[in-house]
This record gives sequence, C-alpha cells and structure tokens, in this order.
Amino acid sequence: MEETQENIQFQLTDELIEKVEILVEDQNDNDLKTLLNEYHHADIAEILDELELDDAVYVIKLLDSETTSDVLMELDEDNREKVLRNLSAKEIAEEVEELDTDDAADIIAELPEDRQQAVISQIEDEDHKAEIKELLAYDDDSAGGLMAKELVKVYETWTVAGCLRRIRGQAKEVTRVHSIYVVNKQEQLIGRLSLKDLIVAKSDQKIADIAKDNVDYVNVNDDAEDVARVMAKYDLEAIPVVDDNQTLLGRITIDDIVDVLKEEADKDYQLAAGITQDVDSDDSIFDLTKARLPWLFLGLVGGVGAFLIMEGFQEAFSKYAVLFFFTPLIAAMAGNVGVQSSAIIVQGLANDDVRGSVNSRLIKEMLLAALNGTILALFLFFFVWVTKGEFNTALAISASLIAVIIVAGLIGTFVPLFLDKRGIDPAIATGPFITTSNDIFGILIYFWIAKLILGI
Amino acid sequence: MEETQENIQFQLTDELIEKVEILVEDQNDNDLKTLLNEYHHADIAEILDELELDDAVYVIKLLDSETTSDVLMELDEDNREKVLRNLSAKEIAEEVEELDTDDAADIIAELPEDRQQAVISQIEDEDHKAEIKELLAYDDDSAGGLMAKELVKVYETWTVAGCLRRIRGQAKEVTRVHSIYVVNKQEQLIGRLSLKDLIVAKSDQKIADIAKDNVDYVNVNDDAEDVARVMAKYDLEAIPVVDDNQTLLGRITIDDIVDVLKEEADKDYQLAAGITQDVDSDDSIFDLTKARLPWLFLGLVGGVGAFLIMEGFQEAFSKYAVLFFFTPLIAAMAGNVGVQSSAIIVQGLANDDVRGSVNSRLIKEMLLAALNGTILALFLFFFVWVTKGEFNTALAISASLIAVIIVAGLIGTFVPLFLDKRGIDPAIATGPFITTSNDIFGILIYFWIAKLILGI
Repeated sequence: MEETQENIQFQLTDELIEKVEILVEDQNDNDLKTLLNEYHHADIAEILDELELDDAVYVIKLLDSETTSDVLMELDEDNREKVLRNLSAKEIAEEVEELDTDDAADIIAELPEDRQQAVISQIEDEDHKAEIKELLAYDDDSAGGLMAKELVKVYETWTVAGCLRRIRGQAKEVTRVHSIYVVNKQEQLIGRLSLKDLIVAKSDQKIADIAKDNVDYVNVNDDAEDVARVMAKYDLEAIPVVDDNQTLLGRITIDDIVDVLKEEADKDYQLAAGITQDVDSDDSIFDLTKARLPWLFLGLVGGVGAFLIMEGFQEAFSKYAVLFFFTPLIAAMAGNVGVQSSAIIVQGLANDDVRGSVNSRLIKEMLLAALNGTILALFLFFFVWVTKGEFNTALAISASLIAVIIVAGLIGTFVPLFLDKRGIDPAIATGPFITTSNDIFGILIYFWIAKLILGI
Repeated sequence: MEETQENIQFQLTDELIEKVEILVEDQNDNDLKTLLNEYHHADIAEILDELELDDAVYVIKLLDSETTSDVLMELDEDNREKVLRNLSAKEIAEEVEELDTDDAADIIAELPEDRQQAVISQIEDEDHKAEIKELLAYDDDSAGGLMAKELVKVYETWTVAGCLRRIRGQAKEVTRVHSIYVVNKQEQLIGRLSLKDLIVAKSDQKIADIAKDNVDYVNVNDDAEDVARVMAKYDLEAIPVVDDNQTLLGRITIDDIVDVLKEEADKDYQLAAGITQDVDSDDSIFDLTKARLPWLFLGLVGGVGAFLIMEGFQEAFSKYAVLFFFTPLIAAMAGNVGVQSSAIIVQGLANDDVRGSVNSRLIKEMLLAALNGTILALFLFFFVWVTKGEFNTALAISASLIAVIIVAGLIGTFVPLFLDKRGIDPAIATGPFITTSNDIFGILIYFWIAKLILGI
C-alpha cells in the first residue's frame, strides 16, 4: 500500500487552472487524464467551473463516465446546464447510467422536457430506467424527490449467514450501507439492522430475532424541509421512505440533507436582504438585476409614500424644523427594530421553537420594545433638550421614538407569524418588506404624535 | 419482533406536557418511566424544555443515566445550564461516564471552572477521564474541539479474519462505525476500510492489501467551519483527525457538522438583523435587550448624524423644501442596496465562491448599481417632474439616487471583503452596520449633489 495521503486542503490555484487550459488546448489527453484522475470529483468540478465552456465540455467527454457523472453533479447549476446542452442525449444517458437514482433523476429533471424523453429512451439498464421514471414523478420538494432507490434490504425469514451471503451483491451497488432494512413478504418495512449488528451476531440466528423494530421512517409525500429537520434532530444518517401502505420505496441519505440545509439557509438569508431568486456573485449583471430590482422598487415606492406624508405636514416646518431633520432617525430605528423582531421569529419558526399563543408573544414583544425604546428615547431626549433647549420638541421626538419602536416591534413579530399560519414562507417578511413598511408607519406615527404634543 | 413502528412525527402537545407534569407532581415514578421510555431522547428533551426547572430535574434524576445523558445533550443550552446547577458533581460525573468523549467534554466545558475539576475527579473510568481531559485542551472552534476519541482502528499487519474477531470489542463502543481506520505500528493513519469492504473480502487477506490509501483527514487545529465545509463538499460522514505527525487522534462525525452548519446559519442570520448574541424568542426580556440594544444604539447614533447633516443644510429649505421630504427615500434606498450587496458577498465568502480580484468585483458592483440606480431614478425623475413641475429639482433628486445607489453598492461590496481579508467575520457588515453607515453616506451625497445642481 502506498504512502500517499490525500490532504484535505485542495487549493484551486490560478496555476492549476492554467495548466489544465494548456493541456486542453494541446489536446494532451494522456497528461490531462493523469493530472485530473488524482483529484476528487468535487475538486475536478471546481476546476471545470473556472474553465471556458468548450474546455469544460472537452474534459467531460475525455474522462470516463464513472468519473464525469459525479463531476457533473458537483458543477455549478448554471454551468451544468450549459455543459449538458453540449452533450447528445446518448452521452447524457451514459452519464445517467453511472449515477445513483436520486442524482440521475435530478439531472434529467433539469433538462427541458423534450430532451428528458430523448435521454430516458437511451438508458440501457431497464431497471435503472424504471426506477428513474418512478422518482421523476415525485415533487422536487418532497421525500420522494430527495430519495434514491439504492438500499440494502433483507427479509425477516433469512438467517444471519444467509443474509451475509446474499447482501454481498446488493452491497456492491450501494455506496454507503448505513442501515440494512428488514421487510416482510409484502415488502413492508418492519425493522432495521446495522452491518455491525450482523457481524457481532451468531450466524444461525434469524434476522427477525436480531433486527430492531423501532425504525424511523418518512412518508414519500413529506416535505423535504421536515425530513431535514427530523434527520438533524435524531442524528440520523439515512432514513427509509415508505408509502401509505408502509411499503419500502427508497431512502434519503444525510449528504442530501446537508445540501438541503445549506440551500435553505442561503435562501432565507437572501430573502432577508431583499433578493428574490437564487443568485451568487458570479452571475451575470442581468440575472443579478432581475433578482434585486423588485425589492428595491418596493423600497422606492415606500420612499415616495414617506415623501407624501412629510409633504402633508410641511406647514409645521417653519415652526418645528428640527422635527423634519429627525425623520431619517425615526425611520431607521423603526426599520432596525422591525428587522430584529422578525428575524427572531422567523428563526424560531424554522427551528420549530415557537410555542405559546400569538398573543403572549406580542405582549412580550411590546414589553421588550417599550423597554428598549424607553432607554433609547431617554438618550435622545437629553440630546435634543441639551443641544436645542426646547423641552416640548424633545418630548415629542422621544415620545414618538418609543411609540414607533413599539409599533415596529409588534409589526415585525406579528407579520411572520401571520404569514406562517397562512402557509406562506415567513422569511419574506424580513428585510426590505419590513423596513419599508416600518419606515412608512414610523413616519406616520412620528408626525401624528408630534401633532398631538406640539399642536401643529 | 413486534409490529410497533416509531412514527417520525412526534408531536409536542400541551396534553403530553400536562400529563408529564401531573405524573411528576404525584411522584408516580413507574408510570413516568413507562411513558417517557417510549420516546427518543431528543423528544424527551423537547418535553423537559417545556417543564418547570424542578420538574425537569426530577425527571433527569429519575431516568437512568444512559438515557438522561443523551437527553441532557439535547436540552436547550440555557435549560441545561440550570439543570446542571441542580445536580451534584457526582451526579454529573455519572452522566459523563455514559457520554461519548466529545459530548462529555462539551458538557464539562459548559460548567464553571471550579465545578469542572470536581466533576472530572468523580469520573470512575480512568481511560474515559484521560480522554476527556485531552479533548478539553483543544479550542472549541477547532477540529480538536469537535472530535470524539471513539473510533475503530486496525493495524495494517492484521488479516481480515483476525480483524473481524478483534473489532467486535471496539465496535460495541462505537455507535456508528463508518470507516475503520488503518494505522501502522507508530499509530499513524495510513488508510481506511469500510465494514462492507471487510465483509466482501476473503478472510485470509491482509488488511494492508484491501485498505484504501486515499483517506481524507483534517488536522486537530483546523477551524471547525473549514472542517464542516470540507465534509459537505466531499459528502463525508466521518473524518479522522490527526496531529502534525499524522498520529490518529480522533474523529468527527457528520451529525456534529450538521449542528455546526445550523448554528453558523443562525448566527449569520442574526447578525444580519443586528442581534449580537445567541438568543431565541423564549429568552428573557433582559437577555433579548442585551442582544438587541447595542445595534439599536448604533442606529440611534447614525440617526443623530443624519440629523446634524440635514440641520447643516437648513437654509436650503425655504427654497427647496421638497428635497428634505425625500431624505427618507434616499436613506432607505442606500440601506437596501447596501444590504443586498453585502449579503451576496457574505454568502459567497461562506460558500467559498468568491474568486477573482477585489477590484473586478467592485467594478461589477458599480455597473450593477449604475444599472439598477438608473432604472429606479428614471421612475423617480418622472414622478417628481410630473407632480411638482420642477425640472431641476427632479434632476437633482434622481441624479442623487443613482450616485447614492452606486456608493451604497460599493460600500456593501467592499466592507465584507475588507473584513474577511483581515480575518474578521464579514457577517457583521450586514444588517444595521451597513444600513446605518449607508444612511449617513446617502444623505451626505444627496445634499452635496443637490448643492451642485441647484446651487444651494
């Protein structure tokens, strides 16, 4: 056995990219294969993501399908789409033959409908084809959409020795075995075993005797996010998927869940910043604009609303100019408090932490906002009073700040809860949505209170 | 084997909580044990999180340590702290004996320093105690701080048959075997095997012949977030941890990484909303205030800054009142654009997507901001011109909007990149920090351009 250790710290350097580009230009296939076959498929994908499309396609066609199928799955989504457009249906089918059924279904689902049929018809392995077609029927966002058909299953009537003999064949297909699932004659899931259990057991014992009957499972129609939350909660690495009759259909592994978790976190974070679709900093200016402009436009409309409100009060200006100069402060505080409140609620909902009635939560937020608002208002009051010498104005501005903070906190707490109860993703109530609406409400309340106290 | 399936959908109902509370009040130990032993330890923890402290402590003392140790790890952090305060050093040591070394070290590390020594001294298993003390020496945020000592290791000179015989003992200690690690006589990590490899191999083969030498590993001092990213990238479920001499020290499993990923996402999300520490909606008003007030105060200071700028321009008001009424709009747009830009950069940095020079990224952001800004400014221009009839004012406001959006986008892009290069978490440059600074810059630029165009 050689002494070469694969150091985890793969570095994607400009030198490496250049080296690959030159080898591709020279069509130096042997050296290219030798170089790339040293790397993990995820690293090869990182390299290809940085190449020109033609070079990337060249490499994909050069390497054998067993490697390239995994590389394709790891490419940036946009790049994968472009690469696939440059492969024939037959070539894509060859990749699909090498993939596990969940990845195979995913890659086919990304293709335009007409191409999907062309690729499917070219798949040679009939079983593989049938399994992929089954998976394509499920919703993307469900357990069925996440699962793979590859798993190891044994019948409760087998012995341990017979089991070990028979699963050698099944185990070769399955990259990571995790649990072995035990089924009855009707193919219903009734228990589980680990390879460890098999090894430590006596060879003449029956599977039924050593299997554990407390097997966790999910229904094929369960929501992907719920599956993710459950696997994280129970520290599971794989979970079997059954239908309403308890028939074992497939399994979901933790690596797919890790991807779901990361995508969820990215999506929520982007919503909080007012970005409407999945973009990253490498996307085209056109795509970035499409994602960012809508929320900016909402902000613009809100700003115009604030303008109209302030214009309505403009006679007050000659007497109380200082009021107008504090509007950015009031609007900013309203926005900040709203974002804080909604972020805490949205996170709580995502982590399934939010218990108790909506009312009790609103009351708690009101007290919290009143406390924070009073502390901040005291600072503001003394600032205005000391620098301007006007007691009533200082009072008006400070009192408004407290009121605005309370209302902003209540809106920030209430809106996500309201959306969640209606089945709408509460994360859209963070970011620009909350800041814009709180700006309007804030300025309205501000001038209304000022009118009360100062009689304008 | 019984037919009871454990349905994944555990529901934490008020009825269940009440039931437990009544059983505790009546000190009905038998029924309490029967009821709770049906549930997974993560679900028991969810129940205990909802009980009064005394009731939770009662349950912890009632159930056997094997169950309660796992339950303790799943409790909300604050509740665990309170429960531990109500257990003696001996009782905590009994829990620690049942835990894997990584959880054992974590739970001891959460205790005040004086209690830590008391608990450690009460641990009976000397090996366990030594291993825990070793782990406590590592930084929380490093691979050493995440790893556990429990793993299955075999020597390269063994045969497959000898291996299967000997690992039965080791395997009983390890909850999930994953890879079996192959070491040489000097205890250095030189390869890996899976149980599947062992099963499909012939019993007289040597380990050295069937082991895979391309084993991924991390160094004990590597950063936890880097370990998480690497495990997600290569779809690993466990990774061995070595020291600088390649000596095998421990391993990190994917369930710990899933927790790290979720905590990271939560933390970034909270920073973007201006919340300084780890709070959730169930925390006390005092803790929530401590977490939220600092950023709100920063917003207040920023608002006062905006006030001072506007005051400086107040003579302009009599001629151009409309300018002042648009300040909230300008400030809001500056804030929104800044948050969008910084969110995209921060996410890109977290996903290791940000390549290319800082300059090229700034130029792209400038073009993007100019495009978005021009589209929005056109709308604004026509709105002001049509409703107010003043061409120069409309021009001043629109031109300012474009300038403000470009500057806000540049600040939002530059600041996280700058912080990241200095080793500071770029996520603090999202949320209130960006909105407040962009408010100030926005208003400054606005009035400066207005001064230029309108000669005020």
